[in-house]
Amino acid sequence: MSTPNTPYKIYLEEHEIPKTWYNMRADMKNKPAPMRHPGTLQPMTVEDLEPVFCRELCEQELNETDREIEIPKEIYDFYKMYRPSPLVHATFLQKALDTPAKIYYKFEGNNTSGSHKLNSAIAQAYYAKQQGLKGVTTETGAGQWGTALSMACAFFGLDCKVYMVKVSYEQKPFRREVMRTYGADVTPSPSMTTEIGKHILETHPGTTGSLGCAISEAVEVATKSEGYRYVLGSVLSQVLLHQSIIGQETKIACDKYGIRPDVIIGCAGGGSNLGGLIAPFMGEKLRGEADYDIVAVEPASCPSFTRGRYVYDFCDTGMVTPIAKMYTLGHDFIPSANHAGGLRFHGMSPILSQLYADGFMRAVAVEQTSVFQAAQIFARTEGILPAPESSHAIRTAIDEALKCKETGEEKTIIFGLTGTGYFDLVAYEQFNNGTMTDHIPTDEDLERGFASIPDFGL
Amino acid sequence: MSTPNTPYKIYLEEHEIPKTWYNMRADMKNKPAPMRHPGTLQPMTVEDLEPVFCRELCEQELNETDREIEIPKEIYDFYKMYRPSPLVHATFLQKALDTPAKIYYKFEGNNTSGSHKLNSAIAQAYYAKQQGLKGVTTETGAGQWGTALSMACAFFGLDCKVYMVKVSYEQKPFRREVMRTYGADVTPSPSMTTEIGKHILETHPGTTGSLGCAISEAVEVATKSEGYRYVLGSVLSQVLLHQSIIGQETKIACDKYGIRPDVIIGCAGGGSNLGGLIAPFMGEKLRGEADYDIVAVEPASCPSFTRGRYVYDFCDTGMVTPIAKMYTLGHDFIPSANHAGGLRFHGMSPILSQLYADGFMRAVAVEQTSVFQAAQIFARTEGILPAPESSHAIRTAIDEALKCKETGEEKTIIFGLTGTGYFDLVAYEQFNNGTMTDHIPTDEDLERGFASIPDFGL
Repeated sequence: MSTPNTPYKIYLEEHEIPKTWYNMRADMKNKPAPMRHPGTLQPMTVEDLEPVFCRELCEQELNETDREIEIPKEIYDFYKMYRPSPLVHATFLQKALDTPAKIYYKFEGNNTSGSHKLNSAIAQAYYAKQQGLKGVTTETGAGQWGTALSMACAFFGLDCKVYMVKVSYEQKPFRREVMRTYGADVTPSPSMTTEIGKHILETHPGTTGSLGCAISEAVEVATKSEGYRYVLGSVLSQVLLHQSIIGQETKIACDKYGIRPDVIIGCAGGGSNLGGLIAPFMGEKLRGEADYDIVAVEPASCPSFTRGRYVYDFCDTGMVTPIAKMYTLGHDFIPSANHAGGLRFHGMSPILSQLYADGFMRAVAVEQTSVFQAAQIFARTEGILPAPESSHAIRTAIDEALKCKETGEEKTIIFGLTGTGYFDLVAYEQFNNGTMTDHIPTDEDLERGFASIPDFGL
Repeated sequence: MSTPNTPYKIYLEEHEIPKTWYNMRADMKNKPAPMRHPGTLQPMTVEDLEPVFCRELCEQELNETDREIEIPKEIYDFYKMYRPSPLVHATFLQKALDTPAKIYYKFEGNNTSGSHKLNSAIAQAYYAKQQGLKGVTTETGAGQWGTALSMACAFFGLDCKVYMVKVSYEQKPFRREVMRTYGADVTPSPSMTTEIGKHILETHPGTTGSLGCAISEAVEVATKSEGYRYVLGSVLSQVLLHQSIIGQETKIACDKYGIRPDVIIGCAGGGSNLGGLIAPFMGEKLRGEADYDIVAVEPASCPSFTRGRYVYDFCDTGMVTPIAKMYTLGHDFIPSANHAGGLRFHGMSPILSQLYADGFMRAVAVEQTSVFQAAQIFARTEGILPAPESSHAIRTAIDEALKCKETGEEKTIIFGLTGTGYFDLVAYEQFNNGTMTDHIPTDEDLERGFASIPDFGL
């Protein structure tokens, strides 16, 4: 089934979990462009960021030089609850595709948050606790990040205030209840608990909210409440740092069993999973030690890499955040209906944006229906019901494996299976009923989004 | 944190997964009473059972002599997709309870069915495939069994017809969609697809169904359709046989790391999980090689062990099944509202019933609200949101650990964490809102159930 001595599921030993996070920026010749203050246009400093984020996380956000950053013992102990995650040899999928390619996936979904988000949530909660804070605030759309943060805060006894986009709050009551079971305070956004929420409710009565609005509320509460800070689950460089544990475990398992990937594939929304999975492989590529075909997969409905612009833009719709240079569709871009809530961000991690601009990775955009077709093949052969986000990577892994079938190449493909789809069954129901549709923005749709990008003269 | 060299999570190596199932009956001096034909009252033979079940499974059902039964390679390969399951040292829970007890749990929920049910589903699907059948039929209430069977049938390319209790079909659309994603044909029961369904709909228009009715429909379709058989996820001796893999892995892990359990705890509905978890330990106890305090935990709302009668009764409300000698509340007993759908069966595994009658195990009944309190403590400390069924075992494990705190005893407690609660969030919501209530049947309620037990003169 597998190559000799390689088990179907590779579980590293507990002591093989990496003791440090790997900071890709240290190996980048072209560093990602700095986040800048939207008023002064000056690069953000630790002091600028500190009112919003925990101090240690501000340091990590700006750290471009330390290649390895030690994982504190308390975080490491928590990691042991659900890590190492398995690297699985997808022999059943290979057989179903009748491909000479070897397919592996790194599965991050075997924890109650259902995704890789816990890797950064526990780190951010830990530093908040260390700083003596009372709690943290955040926003959540699809709910994976909010769930992960709730779990992390419960573990450290921190207060957790989650602003959940109102439409999700109402349509995903189960996600909400998981967070509440972990003790989080979940508020539908926009709400009357913040100035910006009140303002939005006055000007847009009956609105079902947006991620941009939820971010603005969470930031407002963090900055106005004594002992609170704001935390974020993607896009930021600190998040990619914490997520590097995914790629490091993957690389250790590959090295241990003599697996040499040719293609590495991850879905990309804000970049947290992709940046984590590829980190040590990209490190080798940046240092000229090895070459890999690294592929970002995004939904055709929200194609920031493949159709966006690489410019400075706001990270949120409400324009309360610093500006970042990234591939963006414009902060006003509203992707049409798409069930992969985790991939609906208008921008992209500045680190990944720079790497993409410099040709270290490529990107493909895939359509929703074909993504769910891939999800169904995967579920039926490998037994795991994947998250819609992860299924973007499955789609491209299958496409690459089918290309190998045509050419006869025996490529080794690794993809990131970021999570499970147990809370995404409304989307699966549409797929099962044959009522799912694809939504690809027209050039005019994109132009409307681009029009919201201010000209900062940078 | 753990004892030296013992990891927090013990994962056996793939090759350490047992190659055989262990058949407890071979070591029982008092064999379980035979299932009997309700008309002739004669013990059922393979020939009697064959119109309903696959031939090989009929053999297994009646096999009281072979101690070990080999696991076919195809089933073993499937097991490797999600097994070995971890034996976890619950150090975070121990710390929160401040107990000298050592607590371990065997976690069976890390697969898409969300429970241990897959262990028997894949075996039953395999034997159906081997026999050249087209497909299988079954019923499902809470949905774990139906999901597991759908996954197993998708793997072997078998048709899968699931009769889902109508109220669950409507209230648990997500479970239904997982089954459909795996290609199962899910019908709300009662339905117009069977004679018995039509009859029930005529006599009880507007009924939301019952497990008993769904069983009757599934059996009718299996016996009337060419190339179909009926399969069942609990109660049967074959199911306990397949589930013995849980206990065997647990015992191998214990032996490997020098863990010597004093107390072994499992929740008990029909007995599939409990019978599987305790199997090899009970074997030692039956052979006089070791002693363990083995505890069945049942809901106070459906107390078959603690308040039931040990007599012959029907396994279903519709009286279409053979009769079995077991602890029963009467086949007409309707447990009041209880969110642990998997524990709402009026009877109990005949194997476990005999063992209980002979004093090899004890039983406790726990109330729903205290079960969810335990679930919440567990979720917040050990990070996993447990199924309501599993949380019955958590409740009793916590109670035992707190007793140790009083007495200072350093007992080693192992419990079965059968599954996750991701599809049970309506119940968690009630708990979070403080609107959950307990339902304990009165003696009069029980008498009404007992009145439905026929006097077979046995």
